[in-house]
Amino acid sequence: PHRRLWDRWFMMGSIGVTVALIGWALFFAIERLATAKYHAVRWLLSRQSLGVAKLFVAWLFNLAYSLALVFASTWTVVTIAPEAAGAGVAEVMAYLNGCNLPRVFNIRTLLVKFVSCAAAVGSGLPVGPEGPMVHIGAMAGAALSQGHSTSLGFSTGLFRRFQNPKDKRDFVTAGTAVGIAVAFSAPIGGLLFAFEELSSAFSQALGWQIFFACMIAVLALDTLRSAQHSLGRGHFGLFDGDTSTIFFEVQTVLANHVAAMAPAALIGVLAGLLAIGFTVINLKVARLRIRVLRGKRWWRMAEPCLLMGAFVTLGMLLPLAFPCTPTQCYIEQGQTQPVCPPGVSPNVQRIVEQSLELYTCSAGGADSETPAEARNGTLPRSYNELATLMSVTGEDAIRHLLSRGTHREFGYAALLVMLVFYFGGAVWAAGSAIASGLFVPMLLIGSCVGRLVGLAAVDIAASGGRGSAGAPPGVFLPPSPWAWVDPGAFALIGAGAFMGGVTRLTISLAVIMMEVSNDVRMLLPILVGILVAKWVADAATHSLYHGLLEVKCVPWLPPEPSARRPLDLVPVRYAMAAPAVTLNERMAVEALRGILRDTRHSGFPVVRATPAGQVFVGLLARDHLMVLLRRVMARGLPGANGEAGQDDIAFEDLSRHFVSAAARSLILEQQLAVLQARGTPGGNGEQVASACEVEGELDLTPYIHTSAPAVPETFSLERAYALFRSLGARHLTVVDAHNRVKGVVTRKDLLGYRLDEAVDRAQAAGVLPSS
Amino acid sequence: PHRRLWDRWFMMGSIGVTVALIGWALFFAIERLATAKYHAVRWLLSRQSLGVAKLFVAWLFNLAYSLALVFASTWTVVTIAPEAAGAGVAEVMAYLNGCNLPRVFNIRTLLVKFVSCAAAVGSGLPVGPEGPMVHIGAMAGAALSQGHSTSLGFSTGLFRRFQNPKDKRDFVTAGTAVGIAVAFSAPIGGLLFAFEELSSAFSQALGWQIFFACMIAVLALDTLRSAQHSLGRGHFGLFDGDTSTIFFEVQTVLANHVAAMAPAALIGVLAGLLAIGFTVINLKVARLRIRVLRGKRWWRMAEPCLLMGAFVTLGMLLPLAFPCTPTQCYIEQGQTQPVCPPGVSPNVQRIVEQSLELYTCSAGGADSETPAEARNGTLPRSYNELATLMSVTGEDAIRHLLSRGTHREFGYAALLVMLVFYFGGAVWAAGSAIASGLFVPMLLIGSCVGRLVGLAAVDIAASGGRGSAGAPPGVFLPPSPWAWVDPGAFALIGAGAFMGGVTRLTISLAVIMMEVSNDVRMLLPILVGILVAKWVADAATHSLYHGLLEVKCVPWLPPEPSARRPLDLVPVRYAMAAPAVTLNERMAVEALRGILRDTRHSGFPVVRATPAGQVFVGLLARDHLMVLLRRVMARGLPGANGEAGQDDIAFEDLSRHFVSAAARSLILEQQLAVLQARGTPGGNGEQVASACEVEGELDLTPYIHTSAPAVPETFSLERAYALFRSLGARHLTVVDAHNRVKGVVTRKDLLGYRLDEAVDRAQAAGVLPSS
Repeated sequence: PHRRLWDRWFMMGSIGVTVALIGWALFFAIERLATAKYHAVRWLLSRQSLGVAKLFVAWLFNLAYSLALVFASTWTVVTIAPEAAGAGVAEVMAYLNGCNLPRVFNIRTLLVKFVSCAAAVGSGLPVGPEGPMVHIGAMAGAALSQGHSTSLGFSTGLFRRFQNPKDKRDFVTAGTAVGIAVAFSAPIGGLLFAFEELSSAFSQALGWQIFFACMIAVLALDTLRSAQHSLGRGHFGLFDGDTSTIFFEVQTVLANHVAAMAPAALIGVLAGLLAIGFTVINLKVARLRIRVLRGKRWWRMAEPCLLMGAFVTLGMLLPLAFPCTPTQCYIEQGQTQPVCPPGVSPNVQRIVEQSLELYTCSAGGADSETPAEARNGTLPRSYNELATLMSVTGEDAIRHLLSRGTHREFGYAALLVMLVFYFGGAVWAAGSAIASGLFVPMLLIGSCVGRLVGLAAVDIAASGGRGSAGAPPGVFLPPSPWAWVDPGAFALIGAGAFMGGVTRLTISLAVIMMEVSNDVRMLLPILVGILVAKWVADAATHSLYHGLLEVKCVPWLPPEPSARRPLDLVPVRYAMAAPAVTLNERMAVEALRGILRDTRHSGFPVVRATPAGQVFVGLLARDHLMVLLRRVMARGLPGANGEAGQDDIAFEDLSRHFVSAAARSLILEQQLAVLQARGTPGGNGEQVASACEVEGELDLTPYIHTSAPAVPETFSLERAYALFRSLGARHLTVVDAHNRVKGVVTRKDLLGYRLDEAVDRAQAAGVLPSS
Repeated sequence: PHRRLWDRWFMMGSIGVTVALIGWALFFAIERLATAKYHAVRWLLSRQSLGVAKLFVAWLFNLAYSLALVFASTWTVVTIAPEAAGAGVAEVMAYLNGCNLPRVFNIRTLLVKFVSCAAAVGSGLPVGPEGPMVHIGAMAGAALSQGHSTSLGFSTGLFRRFQNPKDKRDFVTAGTAVGIAVAFSAPIGGLLFAFEELSSAFSQALGWQIFFACMIAVLALDTLRSAQHSLGRGHFGLFDGDTSTIFFEVQTVLANHVAAMAPAALIGVLAGLLAIGFTVINLKVARLRIRVLRGKRWWRMAEPCLLMGAFVTLGMLLPLAFPCTPTQCYIEQGQTQPVCPPGVSPNVQRIVEQSLELYTCSAGGADSETPAEARNGTLPRSYNELATLMSVTGEDAIRHLLSRGTHREFGYAALLVMLVFYFGGAVWAAGSAIASGLFVPMLLIGSCVGRLVGLAAVDIAASGGRGSAGAPPGVFLPPSPWAWVDPGAFALIGAGAFMGGVTRLTISLAVIMMEVSNDVRMLLPILVGILVAKWVADAATHSLYHGLLEVKCVPWLPPEPSARRPLDLVPVRYAMAAPAVTLNERMAVEALRGILRDTRHSGFPVVRATPAGQVFVGLLARDHLMVLLRRVMARGLPGANGEAGQDDIAFEDLSRHFVSAAARSLILEQQLAVLQARGTPGGNGEQVASACEVEGELDLTPYIHTSAPAVPETFSLERAYALFRSLGARHLTVVDAHNRVKGVVTRKDLLGYRLDEAVDRAQAAGVLPSS
């Protein structure tokens, strides 16, 4: 029971390695850009000699550096490839769902996406690189498997058999999965992400291949990181602490408690409500942006720059409102005993991490000008709560929020301000003309929510007089049975819950949380948080991606039909478009041209005339018909001028012809030319014969898709929907009892409001009870 | 876009809690039974006063205790419910695939399964409770959702709408997932197990509900365990160390290395080869057992007892061949520095765990009669390598094998003997007349393989002179960059690889390994091991479950058609059974009875006579027709005797009628009675009228399934297969261009050899090139 599939496995491995390389380069660029900025700002702020002016100088540098990067990011997007704007996750979802968007998998889009994303994330905007990695992965999957000879002259001899829609779709799926796997170092999470977004079209064999691709990708990524770090240290190939790709690794393992489910559910409710707000505002901003900024190039570029200015300025002003918090003891992650300097009262309340931001606060020692992280094991005397969250990258801020044993490192005020600040920034940044993702902002916002609830839980528990033996009151460290009351652990729950509320992912999200934190002990409350947030959010809105696709008018089909009523008993007849434009098995070229010119349908049922009427034979796609017609116009009818056989066009050549999105615009022009019977611009050296030269009939029989599904008029609409999803179909022919074509159902007929209309028609016809 | 589904969620939660309760009780019973046995044996062996006779006494006790349990286990199975034999995983897979086996979800089967499994696993046979938990979960899902009024008188008013095949299937799927989730405390692993076995019929909404069920189940299980342990200690609700449900928790976290992929691949190859042997021998034994033991009740009961005798005897004799190994230093799991008594040479090679089996070896102190585990922190002077693996439960043996930092605790000889011993025992035990699973044996066998390779890796690395600073040569503890060369870590890889080779699970298995070990750092080599093992095994055999279903002649359809050649171009015409027996929309009762009596088809296409021939209208299931006919025989034709309307049978009542497997045998008898026109035995007080009384025609129109798929003769066989899998169909009607029925395809037509025959026919007809 074995087929030769080595080339598929090889292609999967190639996609994995390629995406890992791109991802590594992207993360490397971002890290360097961001580190340079934050180091310089920190250094400027520590120049006591500048006095109060140090703040102004630091702000000026920060602003100039960030604006330069943001401008680079938005300029490339707006002037070179507008398709690269945003995360691209929704576009990939649309493609995998069966809707083609132009130029989504273009090589130019890939390059711009990379540059723009690196600059945008490196600049410190509230955006992340994970969404773009999904798009980049999908683009790599499409580019590698399809060969892309049109733009790069790449040799395609080896993988010609992948040049068809189904295989392309498979490899794009793999690329998507690999993108997530690389973004989060989560091979299984990536695979499940791809599965959860397109469950019905997922075969087991494809699952295994994608699994392999994700594995290879993470292996390659880990090896690259290890190599990068080993340059200074030796030990190439070891995946240890410094080169660890477990982003938010939990080091202090906490035993869980059944009572933790209550705050987890509360976090779920709050995160769900916030997610509704996030989604709704996001969509409103997206609509507004389309209305206001359409066509205004410079305004589109100005928008992210404006945001950056506000973000930098507020990010440096807001912490000033916070006093310098004195530090007392610190805890190393992974340890359960804090280190306190001698003489500190045993009633200390504040245990903090070692890496804190001084901001304008004094380090307190002679070495006050060295940045905090350079002084190993010694702690500054005081720190700024808000700056510790705002003056670092989003990922570092998440790490601060997830740190355990640091119950009161951040107060309510700092967390609330950070939440509002980042929420606003993320909503504004998403969808502006930069390539940027939402995963990091979502995790950060969720972490703030979780940590706020955690802080409240600590206060409640402490007010009950509980505390752990050997630790100060209100601080519960691991040997204590109350150790689970830890704001850092709650922040992890919040991160998962908010992301679940916005994206409506569940299984893949849970696995990703497990893989990025390397801890299954918190799995149960995370699951509770995710499910509750999803329920809450489901009650009010679609997922953000679904909403964005609606804003863009893409006919995306959700896994379940989104009609007001069950469709089981609605006959498909009430949803179809009728009468359908049909073709005959043999048709005059002129008639074909007329049909193509007069209709916009992307597929036509083909019928055969019999004594009992015109019965359905199969389906012919518009694309295929177009290619066929173009050949005929160029060379005459096959077999007509004596060179029979040679001119025949194989069926598989038809689908192979549509190689890439890049070639598509050219083909559209050619189509127009054919229809208007004028010469093609360029082409492959073919010259279109003038229309009047080609007469006679064309035999369509070899090109008809005879496995195209057809269903009787009484077929249940619910089941028809399932067919669309599981076969990835675009057309469903509806026939009567004698197999005569009655109409055609397309994806657009299955959108929510069209389904509701079908239900209304069925009720009007008395087929359904009207209740 | 919201439907009222609270009852589904409620049912999912109920299934979760119920299965968690059953699972907890099962594990509790097993633990008590096994602990009693091993404690007593250990105590007897430590009686120095008995001299050499202590061995004999211990053996006698062990044999008697174990035989009593095994006999109880096999007696219940053989005399009460033979369906409870084996793991039941294959049976559940068959059901979910669309094949009904009799009495698989019977309540009696459930009870016997529980008792037999507890006794068998508690006796110490090389079997585990995880497989039976899957079956128990599926049974609970069926029982709870279907109400089961027939045997228990349970009120079914609330959930009548679940009494149809589709919902039942959904809840059985949930039960399966919950079974795995409870067995391994792996909520996501359980969900993915269910998904991986039936990917195509998995909707997103169902996925979320099952996710919820698994979450609730693990939460309930954790709470129960916590309650059980808190009886003595307080802290109810805390899921900490002792009550931890992370079975094989990794406590010493090791940084991974890219070079670890090589031994992982080697382990994959070895585990794959061994898995082929395991599968092939298992199937041969199953066939042999069917041939030799069919009908011989006492021999069937004697078989597991015989195995137990051999297993106990060998298990106590074999360790005698191993000398008492002196202990030097010990390591606590989670620590990186071993504890050595003062005066031990720094060149110590052997670091061991604290819990070791003395067997006949001397503890070396005055307290020699206390079992090892009671002496906290002190170590016996010597131990028996093989007894440490053999004189404990399977799970404890796995824990020993997975222990880290104990590089040379077990030598090659002990590991090899254990491997052969357990391999043989597991192959023999599987499928004998006890309720028992294979997961624990598979993990144990795989761990042995992995640890053997790990030991070789240690020797190779040590011979290169490498060793970690501060640790003895050839022992690499965590700060060292060679720490990844750890036989315990390799054993984890082996466990996953062997299980992957036998079951061909990949994604769910990887997640389960992650959840039971609480460590993602070893994920990459585990993935490599699983994939390589699967590849190796795929080249030679089907998965064990697939094979077992073949042995039982169940028409199970694998995810991909297992034909020798691709089926894309084979028209479905060559696979169908023709001509088909069809019904008309109105038929004489007598004619219907004749058709039911003369054919064994489980569904009939219904046709309508038109001028253009008899066109296809829909499908009528044999079951439905049978129920209909029985009503008619009992009450006469609807509307015939003046009580029109009242007697009409609603379509949904037809499918609701088949509530449980228990009711099925009764129904079969009734069917026979109807066909032979004699009175029904019992029934619901209905009396079947004698045949001659009922004349006239029956209108079948309301009962025809009009959404039954029909495809043209030219439809591709590959796509027809996909339709069967994705719609969970049992019949596919094949029609010609005029919608006239030409034949019917059933599941049996899609088995491997039938597909090959279809290809041959197509080639003979010249449709396919013969190459």
